[in-house]
Amino acid sequence: MRLVIAIYPNCTFLDFIGPYTALSSAFDQIDCAALTLDSVMDDLSLLAITPTTTLSKIDGDVDVLLVTGASDPRAALTSAYLAEIRRIGEQAHYVTSVCTGALVLGAAGLLRGYRATSHWTTADLLTSVGAIPTNARVVTDRNRITGGGVTAGIDFGLTLLSTLTNPAAAQAAQLMMEYDPAPPMNAGNPHVAPADVVSRCTEGYRHLHAELATALNTVTLAW
Amino acid sequence: MRLVIAIYPNCTFLDFIGPYTALSSAFDQIDCAALTLDSVMDDLSLLAITPTTTLSKIDGDVDVLLVTGASDPRAALTSAYLAEIRRIGEQAHYVTSVCTGALVLGAAGLLRGYRATSHWTTADLLTSVGAIPTNARVVTDRNRITGGGVTAGIDFGLTLLSTLTNPAAAQAAQLMMEYDPAPPMNAGNPHVAPADVVSRCTEGYRHLHAELATALNTVTLAW
Repeated sequence: MRLVIAIYPNCTFLDFIGPYTALSSAFDQIDCAALTLDSVMDDLSLLAITPTTTLSKIDGDVDVLLVTGASDPRAALTSAYLAEIRRIGEQAHYVTSVCTGALVLGAAGLLRGYRATSHWTTADLLTSVGAIPTNARVVTDRNRITGGGVTAGIDFGLTLLSTLTNPAAAQAAQLMMEYDPAPPMNAGNPHVAPADVVSRCTEGYRHLHAELATALNTVTLAW
Repeated sequence: MRLVIAIYPNCTFLDFIGPYTALSSAFDQIDCAALTLDSVMDDLSLLAITPTTTLSKIDGDVDVLLVTGASDPRAALTSAYLAEIRRIGEQAHYVTSVCTGALVLGAAGLLRGYRATSHWTTADLLTSVGAIPTNARVVTDRNRITGGGVTAGIDFGLTLLSTLTNPAAAQAAQLMMEYDPAPPMNAGNPHVAPADVVSRCTEGYRHLHAELATALNTVTLAW
């Protein structure tokens, strides 16, 4: 079994490190691929991960394509990046994403007519790429599986692991990750967080939301 | 405010990427430091992160020292590594760890007489470094804060963020990480996982547990 994780500059490392850790036991081969072999900086411009290969080198059977997210995923919204995602996604057994990785999948034309989720701040943008925004932490529609924002990637990973293997293997992965979450507060989604916290976060993301909407419209005009 | 994340070869990236993501908004400076500037491979020997600096270059005020964990943290149980952890930890405002990072802190002599936690498979080994194993997801004893295995680093990070800033800032971080966990199974700790899953995981870790016990005894004999 082969997993391909698609990363790009300024992506959020937790988006893919969570599912990578949850899923790894099921795969013989894991590629962490970018457009080039240059180190990929994270969204704080602090950490750098070295891709294991380039997207163009990915051919043959891919069981799972996982596209990671970013606060600002525009580095993945280029025609060169999207062409690779489309090419790999069209033949992958499962086409998946975490967080705003769904917007990248969508911009590559891979979510048209599929129910999907993204980070809560960008879920509405899924309509602009022909997807059907669906409010759940993990959304499965045929062979498309999308996780919500950042930490939803862990729940996504364990869900997919159970599908690919068996519940006992997924329980073992959960146990070894000690995934027995105990958030010290209850503010993990906009329906439960205090209204002023939600509006501050929405306001802080407003500019980027507009930029992303423009970028997605430009991409889909070229379809 | 300055955060120093201590990493080492074969560490588990999720152990520190979780709290890094949770905590980053509180810090002006974040160093991800290893003994050398060589790329640090993860515990699957697949991903490589580039340290931002070396441990020897860390001086001056450190608000939080965070030592990451690993399935096999023996790369951090060398006299050179432990000397740096001890030096930085002795003057840091908060001395913290996730997962088996607690064994590294302990081997550096920084947990003697402190309550602490580690990954559930290694919690018993805390006694060999003079710590008091405590069964909780996040354990605070004076300025020592230790998180349990792997994903406990997220709860640890949000707990510490709330302490360092204010609950509203921690709620905003939780919301932007969409940390509203929904594990698809209930097997996140050995008290709730099926007995056969627990015994298979314990058995799979038995050899490493013995090797770690030996390594910790060797380290403390040199105290």
